[in-house]
Amino acid sequence: LTVSDEKDRVRLVVRRLFADGADPVDVGSGKAALVTGAAQGDDCAVFECEGEFDLVIGSDYVRGPKFTLYELGYLSLHDLGYYLAAANLSDIAAMGARPIGLTSVVRYPNDMSDGDFEQVMRGIRDAARDHNTQNVGGDIGGAERLILSASAIGIAPRGRVLHRSGARPGDHLFVSGPVGNAGAAVIYFSQLKPTGRVLPDALEQELLRPWRRPRARIDIGTALASSGIGTACQDISDGLRATLDELSTSSAVGLVVDLDHVPVGAGVAAVADLLEVDKYSLALSASVDFELVFTAPPEAEARETLSKAGLECFAIGRAVESGGPVAIRDGLVTDLPGVAWRHQVGDVAANIVQGLEAPASPPRGS
Amino acid sequence: LTVSDEKDRVRLVVRRLFADGADPVDVGSGKAALVTGAAQGDDCAVFECEGEFDLVIGSDYVRGPKFTLYELGYLSLHDLGYYLAAANLSDIAAMGARPIGLTSVVRYPNDMSDGDFEQVMRGIRDAARDHNTQNVGGDIGGAERLILSASAIGIAPRGRVLHRSGARPGDHLFVSGPVGNAGAAVIYFSQLKPTGRVLPDALEQELLRPWRRPRARIDIGTALASSGIGTACQDISDGLRATLDELSTSSAVGLVVDLDHVPVGAGVAAVADLLEVDKYSLALSASVDFELVFTAPPEAEARETLSKAGLECFAIGRAVESGGPVAIRDGLVTDLPGVAWRHQVGDVAANIVQGLEAPASPPRGS
Repeated sequence: LTVSDEKDRVRLVVRRLFADGADPVDVGSGKAALVTGAAQGDDCAVFECEGEFDLVIGSDYVRGPKFTLYELGYLSLHDLGYYLAAANLSDIAAMGARPIGLTSVVRYPNDMSDGDFEQVMRGIRDAARDHNTQNVGGDIGGAERLILSASAIGIAPRGRVLHRSGARPGDHLFVSGPVGNAGAAVIYFSQLKPTGRVLPDALEQELLRPWRRPRARIDIGTALASSGIGTACQDISDGLRATLDELSTSSAVGLVVDLDHVPVGAGVAAVADLLEVDKYSLALSASVDFELVFTAPPEAEARETLSKAGLECFAIGRAVESGGPVAIRDGLVTDLPGVAWRHQVGDVAANIVQGLEAPASPPRGS
Repeated sequence: LTVSDEKDRVRLVVRRLFADGADPVDVGSGKAALVTGAAQGDDCAVFECEGEFDLVIGSDYVRGPKFTLYELGYLSLHDLGYYLAAANLSDIAAMGARPIGLTSVVRYPNDMSDGDFEQVMRGIRDAARDHNTQNVGGDIGGAERLILSASAIGIAPRGRVLHRSGARPGDHLFVSGPVGNAGAAVIYFSQLKPTGRVLPDALEQELLRPWRRPRARIDIGTALASSGIGTACQDISDGLRATLDELSTSSAVGLVVDLDHVPVGAGVAAVADLLEVDKYSLALSASVDFELVFTAPPEAEARETLSKAGLECFAIGRAVESGGPVAIRDGLVTDLPGVAWRHQVGDVAANIVQGLEAPASPPRGS
């Protein structure tokens, strides 16, 4: 019996079974046609709708009560609801769509109190509000434990949806914010703090932020789509390294990353210090940061477009003809550091820590 | 700690938290505005989209591997995938929408083989095909057991979406097909067959059909919506009695049901005989039949419209000014028979059987 991991199952089963094309659906007064389906491997499906816009929809389950930080008491039920909504909104943000709503599936054990149930639903409501959208429906009912899933629906100007496959050699590579906090948080709170290696409160809060108040980068995604400057985009839901692997494969380009330009917060650096590992190795590893990675042809124009919208981004490298993602560090080309997320792995934190690299030694020749 | 049931939670928490209105979302070249959200308690949310159509979306979790009939070996993994898709499509059928696609969330234990995973996905694919639509994306990955959820997306002509709240006194009440098979199947296969009370294979197949090959009544829903004759509609996902209770409350009308006109299959009648209970009591109880219950003003016109589309339906009663749902049986007005589904109940089959009524005694005065 073969047990492949998620990525192989998408390739071997999902894309093969769901590769069908389809005629547009026409209800007389309106029409919708699928332009991006399960076979394309993007974050969401896209329909071209009569009325000059594209409809974007994605669905994500979140582990919720199985999050290590929930089990350790660092996340509340409200936080889980908030996370569920933000995680789903991040998928449509990555496509450049503006959300029109989300549906949530909240199933709970028979003994969950009304108050606890309401906390979950309030979390969903608050995240929707914080992203200028709303929960529009879904499903509630019993299950043997709390189960959380949702779908986000958005619209984008016709033909402006961002895909993973659009990066071209010569494009500049950007990330919308710091990476690694979510992953470092799991390692810190499960392995370091319990053994007395404690960071200041401000750094703990920084690490917890992508868990407690994740922010879907709808601001960046819609700015890229409406301006038309973004060529490819994806959210960081498996860590920067895994995201760059995926973007490189989808777009069939190489990616050269200037490691020194990758934004890494003080919390991640402090955790790397405690672990005695390289901070980039930690920052690029499995970490659900919900920032966007994207490409755009001229660096200056991308910065200017985003800056006019009051947004900033970090130029971290370039797309090149071929070669997959590589890092440049101290003038030398190396493999990208970091450990990718695999759903099959038992103790994620422990496995990642094992795979992390030692701090970089002084560069040869310097 | 209060632990309310699902219905009360919708009323007390969901409708209160998610009652917000919202401005239309405008992306320059297109617009979408929520017209029916979580607060309305319909099967789906509805957006009015520029382009003269309404967008309909609903999300449903299915218990899948926790189905009694799966645990007993009567359903395959393929059947569970099929059911997941059909159950979600039924929600948009009830709104009169034509599906443009569905997203599925399939999470599985780490030891589930590729072959088993593919069976689930093939079931989803086959159900989508059988309903002339397709799976367009979603989420796969690990969990401690198989978890199945999905969303269905459809479109309907502007303003023609069917709601639960539209029935008016004087409307005729219809059901699109026989009721009670799904519920009777659970009782039969879990309580009767194991003790040697066995029905012929043809009747067993009839009982299993809504589990193995559920059919979302998109044909009926879209015919009602496009013709404009339907005033209210809902799918039977909790049994006919619960559906009529809900339709009556939502529309603020009474419903008078001619029990003799309710279509009940030979399988349900046979199970009722074995249980020595009234067949209508069984047929109207908790049973996920996926047929549609709807109202339309003139009976003849509804029949003719559907008949032209090659469809039939069953006129089972009338909407009246007030009074909730009641049954007429042998010329006498009685409460609706049957036992409603409650998610909190432990052994559903056993609890329903306890609540069923004895066979009707000969009517008084006849």
